[in-house]
Amino acid sequence: MCMDKYVIIGGVAAGTKAAAKLRRLSSNSQIDLYTQDTHVSYSTCGFPYFIGGNFDKEEYLFARTVEEFEKSGIHIHLEHSCEEILPDLKKIVVNGQKISYDKLLIATGAKPILPKIKNIHLKNIFTLRCVEDALAIKDIVSKSRHATIIGGGYIGIELMEAFVNRGLKVTLVEAAPVIMPIFDYDISKIIQTHVLEHCNNCIEIINNDFVTEFFGSDKVEKVRTQNGRETETDFVIICVGVRPNVELAKNCGIELGTTGAIKVNERMQTNIDGIYAAGDCAEKFHIVARKPVWLPLASTAIKEGRCAAINMSGAKEFFYGVLGSAVTKYFDFNMAITGLNERDAKAFGFEPVGVVITKSDKVDYMPDAQTITIKVIADKTSKTLLGAQSVGYGNADKRINTVVPALNCHITVKDFMKNDLPYSPAF
Amino acid sequence: MCMDKYVIIGGVAAGTKAAAKLRRLSSNSQIDLYTQDTHVSYSTCGFPYFIGGNFDKEEYLFARTVEEFEKSGIHIHLEHSCEEILPDLKKIVVNGQKISYDKLLIATGAKPILPKIKNIHLKNIFTLRCVEDALAIKDIVSKSRHATIIGGGYIGIELMEAFVNRGLKVTLVEAAPVIMPIFDYDISKIIQTHVLEHCNNCIEIINNDFVTEFFGSDKVEKVRTQNGRETETDFVIICVGVRPNVELAKNCGIELGTTGAIKVNERMQTNIDGIYAAGDCAEKFHIVARKPVWLPLASTAIKEGRCAAINMSGAKEFFYGVLGSAVTKYFDFNMAITGLNERDAKAFGFEPVGVVITKSDKVDYMPDAQTITIKVIADKTSKTLLGAQSVGYGNADKRINTVVPALNCHITVKDFMKNDLPYSPAF
Repeated sequence: MCMDKYVIIGGVAAGTKAAAKLRRLSSNSQIDLYTQDTHVSYSTCGFPYFIGGNFDKEEYLFARTVEEFEKSGIHIHLEHSCEEILPDLKKIVVNGQKISYDKLLIATGAKPILPKIKNIHLKNIFTLRCVEDALAIKDIVSKSRHATIIGGGYIGIELMEAFVNRGLKVTLVEAAPVIMPIFDYDISKIIQTHVLEHCNNCIEIINNDFVTEFFGSDKVEKVRTQNGRETETDFVIICVGVRPNVELAKNCGIELGTTGAIKVNERMQTNIDGIYAAGDCAEKFHIVARKPVWLPLASTAIKEGRCAAINMSGAKEFFYGVLGSAVTKYFDFNMAITGLNERDAKAFGFEPVGVVITKSDKVDYMPDAQTITIKVIADKTSKTLLGAQSVGYGNADKRINTVVPALNCHITVKDFMKNDLPYSPAF
Repeated sequence: MCMDKYVIIGGVAAGTKAAAKLRRLSSNSQIDLYTQDTHVSYSTCGFPYFIGGNFDKEEYLFARTVEEFEKSGIHIHLEHSCEEILPDLKKIVVNGQKISYDKLLIATGAKPILPKIKNIHLKNIFTLRCVEDALAIKDIVSKSRHATIIGGGYIGIELMEAFVNRGLKVTLVEAAPVIMPIFDYDISKIIQTHVLEHCNNCIEIINNDFVTEFFGSDKVEKVRTQNGRETETDFVIICVGVRPNVELAKNCGIELGTTGAIKVNERMQTNIDGIYAAGDCAEKFHIVARKPVWLPLASTAIKEGRCAAINMSGAKEFFYGVLGSAVTKYFDFNMAITGLNERDAKAFGFEPVGVVITKSDKVDYMPDAQTITIKVIADKTSKTLLGAQSVGYGNADKRINTVVPALNCHITVKDFMKNDLPYSPAF
C-alpha cells in the first residue's frame, strides 16, 4: 500500500494545526513535522502572561506535547533545521539528509526585526520568539529592577504589564508619537494617556525617538537614544516588529508576494504544485482592502493551517482572508481593532471618515457602568464600513467582534445600524 | 404656507423616536403626539432596576421630558386617549374632538395579558407597563416581605432580582418546566439551576403549574395554584406576556397580520395610505425565518419609529426585520439570545441542530476566567446559522452580538468559523 507522505516545516501555530487536522482527515498517511526549534505547539501569545506571573507552570504554554503528537502518529523532529527544498525531486534536505514528501507545508513563521543599534551583541538584550526567550526573560525579571522595552506595539505593551506586575520600573521607547500606533492617533493617544495615568510612576515612555546605542562591558547596563536620552537598565527587550521567514521558500523558486511574504491562493497553495504555505510566512488577503497584506497573527495562522491541511488531503477548502483583528490589554484596560485604520484606509485608496464616541458601556445608573471609547471608520464614497477600534474597561474588546462579520459582508454604515443587537439597560 | 401635520398615537419608544426624528427631518412641520398615558418617553426596560434600587431618581427613567419635547416644537398631549381613526377624513378623534393629520403613526404598543385567575380584582396585584405601575411596585416592595411573580420571562427574572436585592422572599410561578422558556430547555435549565443555587433560600420557583385563585378580603393575601400549592404573599406581579394593542387600528379597517399585530411593509406603511405603524403594535419580519412574527422589544420599536418617521417625511427608508435578539441578567449571571431557538426553528420548518459548549471565556490561566455556556443552532440541510444563546458570567452576553450580523447574511456555520475574530489568551 502506498501511504501519503505529508511533510511540514515549522511547529508553532500553523504547522501543528495542519498536522493535527491532516491526522484527522487521513488516518493512514505519514506525517512528519520538522522544526529547528526545541519545542512545538506553544502559545507565543501566552508568553507575556507567563513572564508576568499569571501562571508559572511551563506546560500551560503548550497546546499539545511532543508525546501527544507522537501518540497520534505525528512525528515531531525537534532541532531539525530544513536547509533546502528540492521541488523537482519532491524532497527537502534536513541535516544533510534528503526526505521525500507528497505534499509539503511551509510554516516557517516570522522572525524578529533587529534594528541597527550599536553593541546589540551585549548580554541581556532579548527578543521574544520562542520558549527559551520566555524562560530567559522570566528569569531575568526576578533579578532585575529596571527593564527597557524597545517598541510599543502588542508585545511591548503586554510585556510592560508583565514587568510592572512583577515590580519593575520600565522605560519604553517608541519611534511613533504614541504607543500602539496600529490604532489611529486619537485612539493610541487615549491608550498612552491611560497607561501613564495608571503607572504609579514606574513607567517612562519615550516617543518620537529610538535607541541608537547600548552600553556595558559584558551585559547591557545603559541605553542611549538618538535624542541623547540615557537610561540605566538591567535588561532590554527588542520588539519593533517581525518579518516573514521566507528564505527557504524563496531559494527554491517559490514566488513571494508584493508584501515579501509567500504568495498563496485561497487554498494556501504556492506557485509550486504540492507545496503549501500557512501562518506568518504566508501573505494574506485583506477582506476590506481587497488587496494583499502581511499581518502575522496566531489566530490567522491556525485557520490557514487548517485550510492548508484540508487541501493537502485532497479535499477542497477556502480561506477568504483577514481583517487584521487584534486585541490586547494593559491590566484591566482593553483595546481591540478590526478592519482598516484611517491611515491604512487612505493608503489603500479609500476616503475614510472616522467617528469617535466615548460613552458608558451601559446605562449610567447601572453600578458597574464603565467608560469605553469606540471609533468607527467608513468610506465616504461607498458608505461601507472599513473598520473599528475600541478601548476602555469592561467589554470594550467584545464590541469589536460585532463589527467583524459585518466587515466580511462589506455592508454600509446605515445597514450596520439596523442590526438587531440585544438591548437592556444593564448591557 | 401649508405645513405638514404629523400625528402620532402613543408616546413610549416608537412614538417618541418618530417624533424626534420627524422634527430633525422637517423643521417646519406640526408634530402632535397623543397618549392616554401620564408620561412619555420612559424606559420600561429600566423599571426593574428602579424598583430594585439601582437608582431612585425617577427622572432617570425618562429619555426626554415633556418640556424638552415642547421646546423642540413637538406637542405632547398627555392623558389624551384616541377613540377613533377616520382614514377617509384623515382625522383622528380625541376626547370627542376631530384632529386632522397628513401622516399618522400608530404606536399604541402592547398591553399585558391577564390570565383568568379568580379574584384578580384584589388590591396589590400588579402588571408592569407604565410609570405608575413602577412607582406603585417600588412603594409596596418597601412595605413587604414576600412577593409572588407569575411568569418567568424577562420581566419575571428581572423583578426577581429586584425583589431579592431589596430583601424580599419571592415565589415565582412559571407554567413551563423551567423559567426563561424563550431559551431552549437545555439552556433555560442552566439559568434556573443557577438562580436557585444563588438565592440564599429566598426564592421558590414553581414550574409546570399556574395560579388559579387569589385570596384576601381587600388586598391579596394568598395565591393558590392548580396543583393546590398555597403561598401567603404581600403582593403579586403578573407578567405572563403582552399582546399588541391594535383595537384602534382594527376598528378603522387597518389590516392585521397573521400574528394579530398590525401588518406593515418594510417602510412601516399599513394598508391605508398615509397611516404608518411602529413598535409593539406592529408585526415584524423575522430575518432568519423569513416569516412574519410578533416580538415586542424596545430596541426594535426605536428602529421602527425612526424608519416610519423617515418615510412619513417623504424620504425612503427600509427596516429589514428582526432576529429576536434579547439580553438580560440575574445579578452577575448574564443571558442573551439571537435568532431562532430550536423549538421555533422546527415550527418554521427548519431541521435545527444545536451544539452546546461550556467553557472558560478566556484561557484558564487568566485569573478572571469565567465559565460561559454557548449554544449555536444551525439548519441541517442548508448548513446556515439559525441562532445562538449564551449564558454565564462576564461577557457571555456580548458573544451573541457577534452572531447578529452573521444571521443577517444567512451565512453557513463553516463560513462563520472563518470570521477573523481577535484573539489573545486574556480574551
